[in-house]
Amino acid sequence: MTMKENYFSDESVPLELLRKRAFNMRWAQQPEGVIPLTAADPDFTVCPPIQEALVRYVREGVMSYVPPEGLLDFREAVAEWMHDTRGFQCEAENVFATDSAASGMAVVARAFLGAEDEALVPAPVDFLLRHTVEAAGAKAVPVLVTRGTTAEQFVAGMEAAITPRTKMLWLCNPHNPLGVVYSREWLKAVAEWAVRKGLKIVSDEIWSDIVYEPHKHVATASLSAEIARNTVTVYGFSKNFALAGLRVGCLICTDPEWKKEIVKVSDAESTVYGVSVLSQVAVIAALRDSREWLAEFVRHLQSQRDYTVDRLRGWPGVKVDPPQGTYVIFPNVTHLDKDGDSERLCARLRDEAKVALVPGLPRWFGQGSSGHLRICFATSRGILKEAFDRLEPVVRRIAAG
Amino acid sequence: MTMKENYFSDESVPLELLRKRAFNMRWAQQPEGVIPLTAADPDFTVCPPIQEALVRYVREGVMSYVPPEGLLDFREAVAEWMHDTRGFQCEAENVFATDSAASGMAVVARAFLGAEDEALVPAPVDFLLRHTVEAAGAKAVPVLVTRGTTAEQFVAGMEAAITPRTKMLWLCNPHNPLGVVYSREWLKAVAEWAVRKGLKIVSDEIWSDIVYEPHKHVATASLSAEIARNTVTVYGFSKNFALAGLRVGCLICTDPEWKKEIVKVSDAESTVYGVSVLSQVAVIAALRDSREWLAEFVRHLQSQRDYTVDRLRGWPGVKVDPPQGTYVIFPNVTHLDKDGDSERLCARLRDEAKVALVPGLPRWFGQGSSGHLRICFATSRGILKEAFDRLEPVVRRIAAG
Repeated sequence: MTMKENYFSDESVPLELLRKRAFNMRWAQQPEGVIPLTAADPDFTVCPPIQEALVRYVREGVMSYVPPEGLLDFREAVAEWMHDTRGFQCEAENVFATDSAASGMAVVARAFLGAEDEALVPAPVDFLLRHTVEAAGAKAVPVLVTRGTTAEQFVAGMEAAITPRTKMLWLCNPHNPLGVVYSREWLKAVAEWAVRKGLKIVSDEIWSDIVYEPHKHVATASLSAEIARNTVTVYGFSKNFALAGLRVGCLICTDPEWKKEIVKVSDAESTVYGVSVLSQVAVIAALRDSREWLAEFVRHLQSQRDYTVDRLRGWPGVKVDPPQGTYVIFPNVTHLDKDGDSERLCARLRDEAKVALVPGLPRWFGQGSSGHLRICFATSRGILKEAFDRLEPVVRRIAAG
Repeated sequence: MTMKENYFSDESVPLELLRKRAFNMRWAQQPEGVIPLTAADPDFTVCPPIQEALVRYVREGVMSYVPPEGLLDFREAVAEWMHDTRGFQCEAENVFATDSAASGMAVVARAFLGAEDEALVPAPVDFLLRHTVEAAGAKAVPVLVTRGTTAEQFVAGMEAAITPRTKMLWLCNPHNPLGVVYSREWLKAVAEWAVRKGLKIVSDEIWSDIVYEPHKHVATASLSAEIARNTVTVYGFSKNFALAGLRVGCLICTDPEWKKEIVKVSDAESTVYGVSVLSQVAVIAALRDSREWLAEFVRHLQSQRDYTVDRLRGWPGVKVDPPQGTYVIFPNVTHLDKDGDSERLCARLRDEAKVALVPGLPRWFGQGSSGHLRICFATSRGILKEAFDRLEPVVRRIAAG
């Protein structure tokens, strides 16, 4: 792929299409004129190699049944990618194609958690971790985490939360919404503790391709053979390749018995569960032919991240740490509402500044999220600047009381 | 669409691609040289309007999140289709996009059946009805049905099977594998009985576009307002439009409370469940722009059906009734194996005739299926002729002992 165009310029945002097609609190679901920096989903079109692969496949016209665990090519492409980009040794047979990362989490939860069981889940964190644990009938026990929580502090939190019913530890790395990319040492200390306690680890690594220098993503399952055996990795293609609408992700699981149980619980063998063949074809092209596009996307996002941090530092009383990964930022804005009610604050910002943000509500991010805003910056510089130009005077007015 | 080509000629079967891409007991999973008349899935490419719509959408490049219940256009296209093709009055708001018809059944079962509950399920019938009831933790109670079972006989069967725990009646119309298209009178008598007994009805109508003159598909939910209120219709796009690999179907439910419960149980609101946007785009083009293609497909299938019946009537001791709908036929071949073991018979036919068929095993079709073979004839005349040319001498040899 030669990069003749800039895929991330102001002109490259297909606003008219987004207003018709981008749901989940985004353009198609906002009042006229409102800029959504809401759901973590890019404002850009999918990269050319994905489009080419899809067009080629569609023109060939065969859309028959696919294998329950996913196309062999899909599973091989994922295994190669994991090896090449993060030294995570896995094979095609360890990969199970899932109908989104979220649905992958739901399958893992159903496979390994019963009604009496508990799972340790960091808080705050994206609601899907807690949600899928609870949907399986189990209890999600929060372990509080902040931007600066050390491994020792996190282990202490887990020690305080573990009970005889605790069966799993769920991690999110890079962390949405805190933007932390965990170091090898942090992860190792936490994962080794979990293995010692006999807990299975679910490592949500859907954000793992969106990491900014000098940080590097470390796959939990790459830490040691023993940790790998005890870990199910959740991966997806919506954040990195803008494929949320295609509903495709995967689970990686090196223990063959666990893998078998996961596939069985998913009900893929009966055809009740599965992933569209076109979505798998898109992913194969993403992983094999779109590395340059992704690198450029991350460079663009890093510059967006820096701009976002600069603008937020201009808000009265707001302190922010630049995200190390993800394209969301989670500033504490408690002082902007007298009750620290970020939902009311968000409504005001949407009405007065015409910018939609996600409030730090426990139902979205769990404990420790109140009084925060989550802002997604995966858009063009022009849209991001416009959003902050609108937000700033309103925030200043609010801060001034 | 102008029909310049014959989409169903011998030359139109993309054998090389099918050998790589058609799974689920089909070309890609058979030994070299074996013709699969197995899974009910056509050997033809998807029709041009679907391909065009997909290419257009892919080129536009936006693959963002879609609404949890499906695109409005998708739901409107389904509602229009139901009205135009069978006089079934429903609205977009009654339609819920599902990740295949099978997954739709699984959602309905989970929505309305608990561990203590029972559902009446015809037998034989496609395994997915029983399977999804059982996957929900409930009990599937078989009600025996044959090609000629009258409504009175079926009601008598249900009367004998109903208990205080019975909550639902599941129907399959047109019936796979018996090929029956139920008449208005048959359906009405059965559905009215169910409504009187307070049972919810699930009507699997995935085969409803594959019906041969003079038969006509009657939607259960079109029988009366009261029956409509008590019915969830299961519909899909794999049999009619060859889209099995795209994983898309829908549920239609006119009771708003039931609909709400179904959507809730599916977990679509959280993004755990959903349907790829490209699959929905394919369906919109199928329903709005592919009627002529479908009509030609059914004409081709009718001729294939007639040919299949003729050839089967040449097998010693086999009596067959022509299917009124579906593209499968289910002859009783008990006399071809001394124990009536159709699995052993199928293995022999695959090894000696190089043709793969589906044995009438209880695990595939439930009670009443032993000693039968299921043969799919959704291929070209050339392939079908070759398959019967291979089968006939082997069957004669077997029959001669």
